[in-house]
Amino acid sequence: MEALEKRILRDGRALSEHVLLVDSFLNHQIDMELMRDIGAEFAERFRGAGIDRVATIEASGIAPAAMAALSLGVPLVVMKKAASSILNADALTTKVHSFTKNSDYTLMVKARFLPAGERVLFIDDFLAMGEAAFGAARLIAQAGCTLAGVGIVIEKSFQDGAKKLAEAGYDVYSLARISRMAEGVIEFA
Amino acid sequence: MEALEKRILRDGRALSEHVLLVDSFLNHQIDMELMRDIGAEFAERFRGAGIDRVATIEASGIAPAAMAALSLGVPLVVMKKAASSILNADALTTKVHSFTKNSDYTLMVKARFLPAGERVLFIDDFLAMGEAAFGAARLIAQAGCTLAGVGIVIEKSFQDGAKKLAEAGYDVYSLARISRMAEGVIEFA
Repeated sequence: MEALEKRILRDGRALSEHVLLVDSFLNHQIDMELMRDIGAEFAERFRGAGIDRVATIEASGIAPAAMAALSLGVPLVVMKKAASSILNADALTTKVHSFTKNSDYTLMVKARFLPAGERVLFIDDFLAMGEAAFGAARLIAQAGCTLAGVGIVIEKSFQDGAKKLAEAGYDVYSLARISRMAEGVIEFA
Repeated sequence: MEALEKRILRDGRALSEHVLLVDSFLNHQIDMELMRDIGAEFAERFRGAGIDRVATIEASGIAPAAMAALSLGVPLVVMKKAASSILNADALTTKVHSFTKNSDYTLMVKARFLPAGERVLFIDDFLAMGEAAFGAARLIAQAGCTLAGVGIVIEKSFQDGAKKLAEAGYDVYSLARISRMAEGVIEFA
């Protein structure tokens, strides 16, 4: 998505080989017109995939996922992060490792918000090692749903997440794919 | 907002005098068409107030605030919750007490995303005791901005938040005002 790549080059900041700061338009200050265009792009790509709902993970996935859900005319479900295990009879949970924070968290969704048999589009702001996306995939499978697509705003293609998701058979669509970063340098695949 | 009150009566669940479960359409599963209408309603109410940006608090405020920002054509800034203090030269912080969780958290926003002199519309999903809204108001004041309006999706009018915000001179607009709850009972003001 050309507008997104241009925006990353203009306003993003590569702090190191692995850390990209995009908090001026994606995850702290948010440009909603860009989010609307991102949602429309995801909707166009996955419109033929029979999507019943969009799922994402709080908090940074919510804005782009919300616009995709609105564009597709389906509900959004927001998976929650918890520091510890959750005591709720209806809760599906799975442990996810965050390489960014070097810690684990529990990803949770109420089963009633992933009705069995539905086709789910998972959307997130970043894809690096794929830990969060695979965690979401496990919850979607636990619920008896199908992960019908994975929509990513910014993929760090130099890490293994996208490759592993494709090898697992998932249909991954990333709007911007970064092949290399260094301090002050951002290159697209 | 009649459509919201009807939805609360149909799909909300009063678990006690104080706890309202609306996670089937507002903060876990999210009805984006309702959020779009909510955003449009806030935009209409505050369109004449010279709003430069919308602010909210992660995570449940993001969806309604995002739609209001899109409808007003202004940026959204998402204030972050942190368990402990933040070491960031650009960070404005304030301590907020959560009565729901009976604990404190640090509310944070980067100063660059609240440019001095701007008029800010704060939007949140719930207003009860007003602790979160007053925390946001303190950050907005620290930044040298004006809190030009407070938009609330569901106000628990039987708690003191709305009254205290009005006494402090803020322009509060709540889309649904609940005057009384009991197990299985929801009444509007």
